[in-house]
Amino acid sequence: MNRSYIHGYDALESGRLDDQAHTLEELLHHDTRYPAGHRVLETGCGTGAQTAILARRSPGARITAVDIAADSLAVARKRLEAMAVANVHFHQADGARLPFADHHFDHVFVCFLLEHLARPESVLQELRRVLKPGGSLTVIEGDHGSFYCYPQTAAGRQVVRCLIDLQAACGGDALIGRRLYPLLYRARFEDVRVTPRVVYVDPSRPAWEEGFSRNTFIAMVSAVEKNAIDAGLIDPADWRQGIGDLKATIGRGTFHYTFFKALARGPRSS
Amino acid sequence: MNRSYIHGYDALESGRLDDQAHTLEELLHHDTRYPAGHRVLETGCGTGAQTAILARRSPGARITAVDIAADSLAVARKRLEAMAVANVHFHQADGARLPFADHHFDHVFVCFLLEHLARPESVLQELRRVLKPGGSLTVIEGDHGSFYCYPQTAAGRQVVRCLIDLQAACGGDALIGRRLYPLLYRARFEDVRVTPRVVYVDPSRPAWEEGFSRNTFIAMVSAVEKNAIDAGLIDPADWRQGIGDLKATIGRGTFHYTFFKALARGPRSS
Repeated sequence: MNRSYIHGYDALESGRLDDQAHTLEELLHHDTRYPAGHRVLETGCGTGAQTAILARRSPGARITAVDIAADSLAVARKRLEAMAVANVHFHQADGARLPFADHHFDHVFVCFLLEHLARPESVLQELRRVLKPGGSLTVIEGDHGSFYCYPQTAAGRQVVRCLIDLQAACGGDALIGRRLYPLLYRARFEDVRVTPRVVYVDPSRPAWEEGFSRNTFIAMVSAVEKNAIDAGLIDPADWRQGIGDLKATIGRGTFHYTFFKALARGPRSS
Repeated sequence: MNRSYIHGYDALESGRLDDQAHTLEELLHHDTRYPAGHRVLETGCGTGAQTAILARRSPGARITAVDIAADSLAVARKRLEAMAVANVHFHQADGARLPFADHHFDHVFVCFLLEHLARPESVLQELRRVLKPGGSLTVIEGDHGSFYCYPQTAAGRQVVRCLIDLQAACGGDALIGRRLYPLLYRARFEDVRVTPRVVYVDPSRPAWEEGFSRNTFIAMVSAVEKNAIDAGLIDPADWRQGIGDLKATIGRGTFHYTFFKALARGPRSS
């Protein structure tokens, strides 16, 4: 699994992921609930932002959350302890080599993970191995190429392009949302069903302007400023212009982004 | 109103608009029904593809459909006569200078019209004039900049760009969907509410692959081949490559497009 996680692990980033999880929870998670007693695996739990949502929405499920990064897991453990949640157990593990028996889980779940991987196929293959025949796979990913806005400027486009290019340089794919269907189909999951989850923002939706446009998307782009300039992808003046142009849509323009959620079944005969 | 209507008026085009209207009817029109006896104006009815849907879904409404082009109106009249619909009356008129009294209509409706206009504001102003205070405005438009696909190639992007550039050269804006909110807000409509209507296509949705990807979107792009090549926007080999690349997504990739539907109220005091 790729260790050069583009978003970093600092406190600001952890705060951003909290904001993002809260604003988007209904859109992304409203249709995910696991029955009491079922075994659920989350691979790539990071600092536990999505794990907390899973645990709250499926309080009777037996959730196992794994991540390769010990420092992220420490944050995740603290987060879940603070919530007084008892149905989550954490393990440090590589998502492509999980320490679980074949067909151990009723459900497997990944969110904002595959975009960071050079070979998402290897994690999907491992998820298929540990999933019961007919069990459910849920995958949620973004697609930065789905972003557009009004008004849209060349500089605004360029700063978003920097994020996509940096993620590609790390071996990831910031445009993975659009290829979830082919990925899961080729990984031999069954009954693959993908639905777009569309964020549409205009001045009649001020909570989304703040919660998504400013504090999620523009914050995410802003976080790679130094990397983008150091890599020579953009000069500092254009960067400032581009971020300013994105912010200028708030209160007068529109902002568009699409996440993708895939649901599939583990093969009934393997 | 701009007369150089980019899509042309030939029989093939009329067939394409039929396919499009049928495939997209639920997505775009499911939430538009007008009460019996209410006066409804459709501006820019063209050959009547949307008019037929309005008339069928609101059989008791008194629908007036106007277009500036006599030949389109002739096709529209025949279409509605064939349906044995009696609640539609047609008028040839410029949408920016309507032959109706102030506050004459309970509802006004435009679909795939504003994208073709150099000054959509003048049509909106006229719609506001003929609309009763508190009456409803419905606007449906596409946004060709919302299109993306997987796999996506430079040539595939270029042929779509040709359509956008040709529409701009005619004075239109193929990216108008994203600016419906600001347009309607500045035109002093009230309670403006815009919702994206997202077309997501993958091989699990073969009816959408045929009905939308191939027979609506790719057909629409293909229709401007001669104009694009004559205008020097692209060479013939790149055109063939681009159209081929778009078609190659069918059966194995994904296809994405967003329409926008705006609902608003006429000012209660004007």
